[in-house]
Amino acid sequence: MGHLVNRRVLRIEWGQCDPAGIVFNPQYLVIFNASTTMLFARCGLSSSEMRSRYSILGMPMVEANMKFLLPCWFDEEVSVESEVTEWGRASFTVRHRILKSEGLAVECLEKRVWAARHPQDPRRMKAMPLPPELVASLSDPTGATRCA
Amino acid sequence: MGHLVNRRVLRIEWGQCDPAGIVFNPQYLVIFNASTTMLFARCGLSSSEMRSRYSILGMPMVEANMKFLLPCWFDEEVSVESEVTEWGRASFTVRHRILKSEGLAVECLEKRVWAARHPQDPRRMKAMPLPPELVASLSDPTGATRCA
Amino acid sequence: MGHLVNRRVLRIEWGQCDPAGIVFNPQYLVIFNASTTMLFARCGLSSSEMRSRYSILGMPMVEANMKFLLPCWFDEEVSVESEVTEWGRASFTVRHRILKSEGLAVECLEKRVWAARHPQDPRRMKAMPLPPELVASLSDPTGATRCA
Amino acid sequence: MGHLVNRRVLRIEWGQCDPAGIVFNPQYLVIFNASTTMLFARCGLSSSEMRSRYSILGMPMVEANMKFLLPCWFDEEVSVESEVTEWGRASFTVRHRILKSEGLAVECLEKRVWAARHPQDPRRMKAMPLPPELVASLSDPTGATRCA
Repeated sequence: MGHLVNRRVLRIEWGQCDPAGIVFNPQYLVIFNASTTMLFARCGLSSSEMRSRYSILGMPMVEANMKFLLPCWFDEEVSVESEVTEWGRASFTVRHRILKSEGLAVECLEKRVWAARHPQDPRRMKAMPLPPELVASLSDPTGATRCA
Repeated sequence: MGHLVNRRVLRIEWGQCDPAGIVFNPQYLVIFNASTTMLFARCGLSSSEMRSRYSILGMPMVEANMKFLLPCWFDEEVSVESEVTEWGRASFTVRHRILKSEGLAVECLEKRVWAARHPQDPRRMKAMPLPPELVASLSDPTGATRCA
Repeated sequence: MGHLVNRRVLRIEWGQCDPAGIVFNPQYLVIFNASTTMLFARCGLSSSEMRSRYSILGMPMVEANMKFLLPCWFDEEVSVESEVTEWGRASFTVRHRILKSEGLAVECLEKRVWAARHPQDPRRMKAMPLPPELVASLSDPTGATRCA
Repeated sequence: MGHLVNRRVLRIEWGQCDPAGIVFNPQYLVIFNASTTMLFARCGLSSSEMRSRYSILGMPMVEANMKFLLPCWFDEEVSVESEVTEWGRASFTVRHRILKSEGLAVECLEKRVWAARHPQDPRRMKAMPLPPELVASLSDPTGATRCA
């Protein structure tokens, strides 16, 4: 079983950078959240379609482990590669890598849970088993296996 | 009728600033949103209590007019003064001013609506008449008139 | 003299939205800052090339007047249209419009200054005359007139 | 050797939350960046004084390991506790914990470097030995040992 990799190219914006002229670290998490959304949309369902089809509230992050190896500067072009590297029953790990010409700039492993609103308590969530067709879709490196 | 003024002192954070070393303009709106919440909390109800007591969804902004007169620099201490300067039936205008030692740095007039979810369409909102006791509370410069 | 219009299509991200499910208003300014950068890059110079070629520090915003007509919801696709509608000697006004299928959602008129670091005081900026070839480029609706 | 702990109380803002009504994960890093600044300011130097006194550019993050145990909801009051738990020669680890009435909500271990601009290359940074008086100050749980 392989991994579908989602790649996108970004130009670092003025507003993502701090007074040192480099990306302010929380902005990387903003980028990775959007990258996870885009990776999952590759299965053929938009983010809101996925929520209604599978009755989930979302995919809350339970862990994030980030390494910052090279700073990214204002107006630089970088690429972001994202893939699910591990599947649990109701959770999964996404690896994001930001690459620039000099090499790997940032790496993040994020663990997320496939979660519905808790039936008894609206302020809690409940982990749900991952739909097998979604796992299949994101495990096909060619991107040809779709949920919808 | 006067205005209750809410004052707070802020130290400009590294992450609010851009590569020029000054506050990135959207951050002022982040500050003003929080300042409006704090001003309204002066009536004695927290933001979530106010929503449930008056069955509103929120106070969506319909207009914002900002003037940037002096830049605010990283690590500077500034004060933010906020007050409702105009009351409509279901809308109101908040004026925010950011002051530093050299004078007025930023001014914002924001118009907001007191709004509930639309009964027929969950994707629309419906303007609601402002509770008179809230208007009274935010019109008392002493802060002694409370809703709760 | 016409206006070069820059259009881009965005899908509203989860992280741009607030608990009401709609875009949190400061995020519109984040979008408009990036849109202004993209519009100016249409002249053929990237944002950092422009800064070094013309020895400017940036284009600080001195005024922003925003109208919020329709909320934008999570996962909606919207288009952003940006153009310079007025040129001064050292300042200019950019109009941004966010359009969705129901019509105009947000409009912003932002006034910016073409500014260098002040020669006597690094904490102040100095307005500089706009380069005529830049004005010519952004006044050509076809996008064929380039600075570089 | 102990740890100076910096505690601060926050009320979760509307604009920090996502459509699920809970804090959007990058906002935790925004909170932790400010908390590190506030912890270091306890030594008696503001953030900009520290930069000029010790000729550093900043304290870039090289690693962040976060665990999200409980969601934080809009309008909740939480406390943030921050302390340096490990000192290297030119690097250190800060532990941040967000606590609410039900217990630990978020934990973050961030590793940062004490860094100056690289003498040969302005786009690189150079790790510098940590000032012993700063280490002493942040290792005194009473907060009585000051750098200035």
